[in-house]
Order: sequence, then structure tokens, then C-alpha cells
Amino acid sequence: MAQYQVRFIPENRVIEVEQGTSLLKAALLAGIFIKSSCGGKGTCGACKVIILSGDPEVVGTGNLSPEQLARGVRLSCHTFVQGNLTVEVPPESRLQEHQVLLGNANQGLVQETEKDLLTHYGCHPLSRKVRLQCAEPTLTDNASDWARLSLELRRVLPMDKPLQIPLSVLRTLPETLRLAHWDVSITLTDLDTGYTVIRVEPGNDRPAYGLAVDIGTTTVVVYLVNLETGEVLDKQGTYNKQAQYGDDVISRIVYAVESPENLEEIHQAVIGTINELTVAILKRQNLAKEDCGAAMVAGNTTMSQLFLGINPRYIRLEPYIPTVNSTPSIPAREIGLALLPEALVHTYPSVASYVGGDIVSGALATDMAHSEEVILFIDIGTNGEIVLGNQDWLVSCACSAGPCFEGGGIQFGMRAMPGAIERVNINSETLDVSLKVIGRILPIGICGSGLVDCLAKLRNAGIIDRAGNFQLEHPSGSQRIRMTPNDKEFVLAWAYQSGGEKDIVITENDVKNLIRAKGAIYAGIRSLLQMVAMEVDQIDKIVIAGGFGNYLNVHDSVQIGLLPDLPPEKFEFIGNSSVKGARLALLSQRAWSEATELARKMTYVELSIGTTFMDEFVSALFLPHTDLSLFPSVEG
Amino acid sequence: MAQYQVRFIPENRVIEVEQGTSLLKAALLAGIFIKSSCGGKGTCGACKVIILSGDPEVVGTGNLSPEQLARGVRLSCHTFVQGNLTVEVPPESRLQEHQVLLGNANQGLVQETEKDLLTHYGCHPLSRKVRLQCAEPTLTDNASDWARLSLELRRVLPMDKPLQIPLSVLRTLPETLRLAHWDVSITLTDLDTGYTVIRVEPGNDRPAYGLAVDIGTTTVVVYLVNLETGEVLDKQGTYNKQAQYGDDVISRIVYAVESPENLEEIHQAVIGTINELTVAILKRQNLAKEDCGAAMVAGNTTMSQLFLGINPRYIRLEPYIPTVNSTPSIPAREIGLALLPEALVHTYPSVASYVGGDIVSGALATDMAHSEEVILFIDIGTNGEIVLGNQDWLVSCACSAGPCFEGGGIQFGMRAMPGAIERVNINSETLDVSLKVIGRILPIGICGSGLVDCLAKLRNAGIIDRAGNFQLEHPSGSQRIRMTPNDKEFVLAWAYQSGGEKDIVITENDVKNLIRAKGAIYAGIRSLLQMVAMEVDQIDKIVIAGGFGNYLNVHDSVQIGLLPDLPPEKFEFIGNSSVKGARLALLSQRAWSEATELARKMTYVELSIGTTFMDEFVSALFLPHTDLSLFPSVEG
Repeated sequence: MAQYQVRFIPENRVIEVEQGTSLLKAALLAGIFIKSSCGGKGTCGACKVIILSGDPEVVGTGNLSPEQLARGVRLSCHTFVQGNLTVEVPPESRLQEHQVLLGNANQGLVQETEKDLLTHYGCHPLSRKVRLQCAEPTLTDNASDWARLSLELRRVLPMDKPLQIPLSVLRTLPETLRLAHWDVSITLTDLDTGYTVIRVEPGNDRPAYGLAVDIGTTTVVVYLVNLETGEVLDKQGTYNKQAQYGDDVISRIVYAVESPENLEEIHQAVIGTINELTVAILKRQNLAKEDCGAAMVAGNTTMSQLFLGINPRYIRLEPYIPTVNSTPSIPAREIGLALLPEALVHTYPSVASYVGGDIVSGALATDMAHSEEVILFIDIGTNGEIVLGNQDWLVSCACSAGPCFEGGGIQFGMRAMPGAIERVNINSETLDVSLKVIGRILPIGICGSGLVDCLAKLRNAGIIDRAGNFQLEHPSGSQRIRMTPNDKEFVLAWAYQSGGEKDIVITENDVKNLIRAKGAIYAGIRSLLQMVAMEVDQIDKIVIAGGFGNYLNVHDSVQIGLLPDLPPEKFEFIGNSSVKGARLALLSQRAWSEATELARKMTYVELSIGTTFMDEFVSALFLPHTDLSLFPSVEG
Repeated sequence: MAQYQVRFIPENRVIEVEQGTSLLKAALLAGIFIKSSCGGKGTCGACKVIILSGDPEVVGTGNLSPEQLARGVRLSCHTFVQGNLTVEVPPESRLQEHQVLLGNANQGLVQETEKDLLTHYGCHPLSRKVRLQCAEPTLTDNASDWARLSLELRRVLPMDKPLQIPLSVLRTLPETLRLAHWDVSITLTDLDTGYTVIRVEPGNDRPAYGLAVDIGTTTVVVYLVNLETGEVLDKQGTYNKQAQYGDDVISRIVYAVESPENLEEIHQAVIGTINELTVAILKRQNLAKEDCGAAMVAGNTTMSQLFLGINPRYIRLEPYIPTVNSTPSIPAREIGLALLPEALVHTYPSVASYVGGDIVSGALATDMAHSEEVILFIDIGTNGEIVLGNQDWLVSCACSAGPCFEGGGIQFGMRAMPGAIERVNINSETLDVSLKVIGRILPIGICGSGLVDCLAKLRNAGIIDRAGNFQLEHPSGSQRIRMTPNDKEFVLAWAYQSGGEKDIVITENDVKNLIRAKGAIYAGIRSLLQMVAMEVDQIDKIVIAGGFGNYLNVHDSVQIGLLPDLPPEKFEFIGNSSVKGARLALLSQRAWSEATELARKMTYVELSIGTTFMDEFVSALFLPHTDLSLFPSVEG
């Protein structure tokens, strides 16, 4: 097959690819992440690139305008290499690195909780190292190599659990023992069910390391953890390479179930993402993959199944059945993860198809299962996953909020990256607008937290009514409110103020989408409360997790009826709770046992059964809500 | 690389091989087993072939005579393909199929013991099948696929053990369950430590099968066992493909430790041997490899390590340390064995480098560990392995008898195959000889049982004295006793009576070798007895196992001092005790636990420590022994 060069601008990065490779894939190979919300179907228009030179094969142009086509704009998923090319990837088409939430919460409130938790559980990691001096064999002491090693191990390990060694490690035993003059360091897997020797090396006093991994649908984060001290040595996050197959779990499933090859491809995409992060971190820390003795992975149910290469078909089809919730632990070599080949890779157990291991991990990180207070834990992304409860009971649900808060389905929506409007202020009289833009550059769109803010301010300024309808007759007479052939809209930034050289607007349709999204989350919360016959004010604490949650403004969120109307001091932000819970379970056998218990104990409420959720949802399609008594602070 | 055709005569079988392939290897590829006692070093001369046409590359001719060379005789190990060839493989160079001991003892005495044993242990196999009807999921009953299956399994299995499923089987779960309308048959691994689901298939009532395997240095035997009934459905044996690397364990070790590639090659040779047998049996029985849910393998320590791909280097070097005695059980896929990929392959534990899993398996098959009587269990091959004991104690040792009893180091020695003299009668006055030949054809050599017989008859006829010296001045004046430039010899068959067209003789050197071999075995027995301060007549029963043992004449063996002088009714033949013990452990978890216990309990006596063995050995270098009081029946 002929090979051609594609040069990406502005990086000026050149990659050689086979004829017939899509520009979307070529960019990924070059390490440039392009948005692909629809998963390469050519419908979302997110993956635009500009052909600066060369003549690619174009098989579809979607909704591109004649003007765009004339400028060389193409959909990278539907444009294929058939010669050398130079391609510009504009900022609005890019996923960017900085947005990945590595763990820290924006208000730092829960960092201390996390420290307490490790003290509480105690550091008893799932893998550890011990150093041994074995006795040299003689004619009168002729026990086998493994018997000699076991004997010494039994002197330092509690005798209560079986001890085993896999064949691949056994094979290294005779030479290593003699090379090391019988002074060896042993890396062990240490589980409830027993010890397994996973590495034998010449004696040294280096500690064992482990990986805590959060597989988000959008981003993947890896922590490198010192298993002796519990310290997080290094961390790194990046976009999930599966993004090329679509933004949300549904598009990933649709792609994966098409053929065994597709499943393998999307499985390898996430393995590759984790390995790249791991290799980068290990290189920085001057460590080898053989130094990592365990990995703990948390992800939603679809991400977990794809990580393990399990077909996710029935997660999507009613009655929404995952293949497995309590995922088996497997040696790293079985899925090609970059750690010691026999190191066990543990995957956080899920509760149901739409309440996954990331939520169980997050719930563990909140310590809600040991709390006397009633805690509401919310992770808002494409799905809003919600857990309510305390030490005695836990209920959970998932409500499909849609992609609004990540910028999807909103005309100028985008992820929280440079150029995204994150705060909006509107003068109620003049309708003059002031904006805060990530990266302090000209705005090109608006991200989730900006949208929540915008919605609150549109309502405050009387630009929209409680149902989200635009008020064309605003007393200010501002030209920012206007009618287009298709919709009504409000201009947030004029073309000359914009990085994209056109007016940035929010439309009535955008507003309706946002109201549906916030309504779904709030209806989910109310449905769980109804399940346990509680009222909003009986919630003692609300813990908010996740990338979007991290930038959320509590006041605005209450104003639009996204979050319950409780005093600000009852809200906490936990950041990436999924990777935090993964670290805890990696470091503590007790935490890991409790995680399994937690997943079993958490009652899953299927919102599509009965009318409760739908009734609540309809009531929540107002700003802030049909029942204003639920939002006294807004009413006031 | 150029390919050439080699035609083997008399089979007329043609195989295409690469230039540079040895004729030894080409024959193996064609399914023709050629003897290679020295492992291809060109020293033993066992692998002779005759080049009928073509011009191979000859890199060595060993001890071939000019006359042989002129006739086209070559060493197949030192002759390489460089063009098309026609090659004759003469009978004396062949390993032949019929000799493999499939299990039955020659006197059938122990068959009943074996039946009793299975009744005694109870059929509780290491793998079994259960059929289940799972409940179909609904929105209100949305447990995962694995949770549904576990629930049903827990209804039919005792709850006392953990239940798990490996990733590869989990991956088949969603489609299989739905395809089968939730009516499925589950193949399980059932061990002390827990259950593992190793196959899920649409519901059927076929049983699970298993393999019992004996890996002998010379031959490999496979039993196909119905795990529900315990019945041996089919069995087959063949030569161990490792034979091309040498006759005995030492030459195999020498070859294996040369390089990782050699180790891999010799490892694959035994895996290939087992797989060929398995595939042949399964085809005959109209079964698939997926129908086999477990395998139990017994072999000596070197064979076990090579089977598992573990370097056997330190088995050969003082202080003779194996890497492992309690070998781990591994999924078949890890070593490419032709069973269900996740089926566990169990290897019988060894006691020491030279008392291996085959002896532990054999000892289990004798039931000596439950016996009140004192039993002496002997397996005679290249090594003589001996176990002495009862329900309270067990001691074991290995004494190197050398290859005499398998035909090695004896001028006309050969294995027990057609053309081998197995019985000898000599008229004490005339020295006329009558022979019994395997296959009732003209003799070409003499096998182990024939040699034992011959030695007894040479002594009875006064042809040799008690030290094995030839008496040239025999009263008969027979020309059968004669002097050659190098040695003295006795003619067993004249050239015209022989299949090899030359006189078949036994030399004084042969006789001395045989005396050393029988002396080593007897000295081993005496050393064990001394260990426990017992005398020969305190042995209640002698059980003899193995290929050679199976054809042994007890009376002759006592006459030459190979076996203790006990009444004939105290001797039993158990046949291939190794594969019998393997079948028992495959069918009974209790037997398998006891096997592990047995290996631990068996005290290993290292004969090279101290002077006991050497003193006994020197005393045993007479016919029958220096101390005639030990052999009252011979003296009489």
C-alpha cells in the first residue's frame, strides 16, 4: 500500500500514513486529538479541518457551506489520504490537553477527607515487595528452588493464606536465584484469597509501585502510586483515544458491536491510551513497567467492558443488562497493559449498566458508606449519575442529561478549553455583556459552566421567561436579542469580539436543550429522594464530582434549578473522585473489599420504570422549577 | 530456502523439507521414529539409514565400517538434505509403536486393585458439567449476565467455595446465553480452592471428559476419561518426540540447557506428542478438544519441567535441585495443550530431582500409603526408582541402572519390539540355544527381559562364573563360546538364523554391564531397607511397574539377584502405574489431595551421600550376590 505524508498545521507535525487513511485517524496517529462527536459518521461537523495543500479523496461534506468548502474546509472523518497533504486543524475542532481533570477539586475541600480515608483504611496494598535471603542448597538440604523460596516467604508473611507462583515466574526462578546468590526481592500480589509471586529479581530495596486509573468516556487519568508510602508520585491525563468512535458511550457501543474487529479496535484504543500515559510517567520517574505490581481501574460500565474487551451490546438494549458487574481481576499480560506481566489488574465493580465502577469508586472516595449524615453524590457528565445515602442505605440512578454540559447540541457549545466562555454577566438594563474566557483569549464558544451561568443571567435579565421562551420585546431594545429565519437568539459576543470571526449566540433551542438537561438531573435527584421518602432539606451534604462539576458555580446551578436549593456550605467538590477511589482501593485491601461490598449494597433505581421520573422531569422543565417552594432562595 | 523431497522406504512416504534438514528430523516429520540414543551427537550409531538414491551432505560417519559406507549406510543425525533423496530406514534403527505400555499389567493382578481404588476415593472429578436454566432478564430483574449465571450455579453447587470466571469465558457469555435462550451447559473446574467456569455452551447433556497423561522419557500415553463415569473411553501411546534429543533424561537436559531455543524446541516436542495422541483419540471418539475439561499429567521430574518449559539445568548439577516439586496447575492455553483453553492442566508433584511425579502417581495407584503391609514399589527403566513403605512411612530413592535394560550399552541390545529375543533357553550340556522372539520373526537383537533371562541361563549353564567371567573351557566344547580380538562372547543365534544376517552374541562386557545394572537396583533396595532397619523378608509385597518391568520374569530376576528372593506370590505387576495414578487423581479430588500429601510425605534418600549404597553396590556385583544367604532359593 502506498504511503503518504500528512503535515499538520500549526504544529508542523508530519506523519506518514497508508493511502486511504482518514484525516481523523492520521491526526490521532500524529498525536493531535480532533473532536468526533458522532463517531466518524459525518453528521456532527465537529471534526472540521482545512486542506492547505494536496488533493485528498472526499467522500462526504455533511453540512459544510459552499463558502466553507471553497475555503478548503473538510470533515476529517470523511476525507482520505491519496497523496501528500498539508492540513490545518483549527482550535474549535480540537480536544485539548489542559482540560483533563487530574484529581484536584476546584475548592480543595475534599483533599483532607481523602487523607483521612487512607489513615482510616490503613496502607495494606494489593501488591508489595519483600526481600529475602534463601539458604543455598546442598546434597543434604535438597529442597526445590520454589520450596526454598516459599519457606523464606512464609517466615515474613502471615501463614493464613495460600501462596502460589505462576508458570512464567517459576521459569525465571532457577537462574535468578543463583545469579543473585539467593538474595532476592520478591514482588507479591496480596489479596484476601492468597499471595502470588509475580516477580523475582536480585535483592534490592526499591518499593513496589501501582497504577490508579480512571477511564472516563472523554478522558483517561493515570496516577503512579508508591505502594509502600501511598504517595502519588506522578499523574497524567489525556483524551481517551476512543473519542474517534464518538463522544458518548452509546456511539462507542454502536461502533463496538458492529464486528469483532471493531470491538478489538475500540478495546485497544483504551489500552493504548493507558499505556501511553503509563510509559510517559514511568519514563519521567526513571522506572520500568516491571516496577508496577498492580493496577486499579475505575470506569463506567461500558468503559469497563470495553477495557476488558467484553462486547457491550446488551448495555444499550432494553432491559440494559451488563455482562458483568463484579469484573474478574486479570494478569496485565492478558490485556497487554504496560506493567509487570503477571501483575493483577483490578476493575472496580459496577452496580448496573448505567451506574458503573467510577461511581462506586467515587462513592468510596466520599466515604458516604461510613457517614451518619445523608450525602448526595453527583457526577455530571453526559449522564448524570447520582447516589444518595449514608452508612445504612444507598440508592443510585442514572439520568440521561444529554451532551449539553459538555457542549454538545448547543450551537456554540464546546468543552472547557481555551476560547470557551466560562462566566457570563449581563447588565439587566442595557443587556451589555461581559465574559470570562478560558485562556484569556477571544471567545470561540461556550462551555458547560458558562452555559449554566448564561442561563441564569438570561433569566435574571428577563431575556427568557421561566419556560425558556425568548422575550423579543425587551425594555432595553437591545439588538442582541434577535430573530433568525429558524430561531430566536441572544448575541453573547459580536463577530469583531470573537475568535471565530462571527457572532457567538445562544439560541432558544439551546436554552430548551439546557432546561431539559438540568431538568433531567434534578428529576433524578427528586426521584431518589421519593424512593426513600425524604425531602431536599434532609440532605446533609452534596458532593459534586467530575470534570464539568469541577467548574460549576453553585449559585447559578441553584438559580436554574439544576442543583437543590441548599445553603452553599452544604456543597463540596471532590474533583476526579473516580481515580481517588481507585488509589484508595489499590492501597488498602480493606478499601477494596468494601468497594465490592459497596457495589452490592447500592440499590439501583431504574428511572424508566413507572411514572415518578417522568412526572418529576416535566415539573423540572421550568426555571428553576414548576414548584417554586422547592427553591426559596431563588424566589426570594 | 530450497525445498527437497525425501522418500522413506519401505513406507514409500514422501516428505518435503528445507535444504539442510537432517535425515533424523526429516524422518520424524514423516512420522517415522528413528532411535537416537546420543541425541544426535553422532556417537551411538543407533540412527543408521541407507541412502538408496540421491546425494546428501554427510558431516560425520561415526564408527561406520568401510563396508557399511560402501553399502550407503549413513548416520541420519549427521546426514543433511541438499537434494531429493530416497532413504531406507532398517528395522534395527526404528522405534516402533507396539512397545508402548498402555497400562495393562502382564499378569492382570492389579487391575482389580485399581477398580477398588476408584470406589474407595469416590468419583469427584476435577472438572464437571452442569446444565442450568437461567431466568431471562427484565427491567425489574436487571442483574448482570454473570450474576444470573452465578445465582443458578449456586443452586446446584455447594456454597462453600468461591466461584469465578476467566475473562476469555466471560467474553462469550452475552451471546451464548441469549443464543441458547438462557438454557446452558457449564463446564467447571472443581478444586479445593474453588470453582471456575471454563466453558458456557447451549444446553446439552453430554458429559465432561478429561485426559490422563503419562510422560515417559521414552513413551507418552494418553487416556481419554469420561469424567462422569470414570470410564477410560480410549487410550493411545507413542514415542516421546523428545527421543530425537537423546535416550535418557541427561541427554535431554544437556540439549535443553544449551539455549532458550533448544529448551523451547524440546518443550514443544512433548507438547506436540501429547497433542497428536489427543487429537487422534478425540477424532476416533467424535469429540472436540473443547469437550476436555481437565488434564492430569505424570512424569519424572525432568519430563515435568520440560513439559512446563522450565529449564532443567540444576537437576543435573550437584546438589541436583529441581526448580519445583509442587508444580502449579495452569490453563491449557498457556502451554498450547489441545483441550478447552481454560481447562486446568495439573502436573503430579515430584519428590526430588530423580524421584518424580510418575513415581508419586504410581505409588498412589498401588495404594501403598493406605496399606498396613510393607510394600516395595519398583519402576525399572534407565533409572530404577524405588519406594518402600506403608500407611505410616514411605522412603524413596533413585539408582542409576544405566540403559542396559532398555537395550543400551549392550552390543545387540534393543528395545522390546519385533525381532527382539525375549526368552532364552540354553541346554546346560550341549549349550544348544532356543529363543523366543517378539513378533515370531528372525531375531535381530535382545531386549531387557531377554537379557535378564540370558544372564540367568548363562550362569546356570556354567558359561559364566558368579562374577560374570566367561568360562572358555566349557565341558561341552561348544563353539558358541568364543574369543574375539576384543572380548569373549557367547553366540545366541548364528548368522543364518538371524534377521540381521550376522551372529547375535552376548559379550563378557555386556554381562558386566548387566551385572552393574542389576547390582544398582538391588543395592538401592537394600539401602532403603537399611534406612528403616528392615530385612528383605519383612517386605510383604513387591509391586513392579513400567515398560521393562511388565515383561520381566520374576524367577530369572531373582536368579541373577536383580529382585529380592521372595516367594513368587509376593510379586505383582501393575503395568503403567503412572497413567493409572493420573486417572485416579483426575477423577477424585481426594486422590489428588492425597497425591500432593504423598509427595510431601515420601522421604527421599540421596544415595550419593555416605557409603551405604556404594558398599551394597559392590556386594551386589556377583550372581546373585556376594552374600548368598540373601538368596536361599538360588543357592538351593
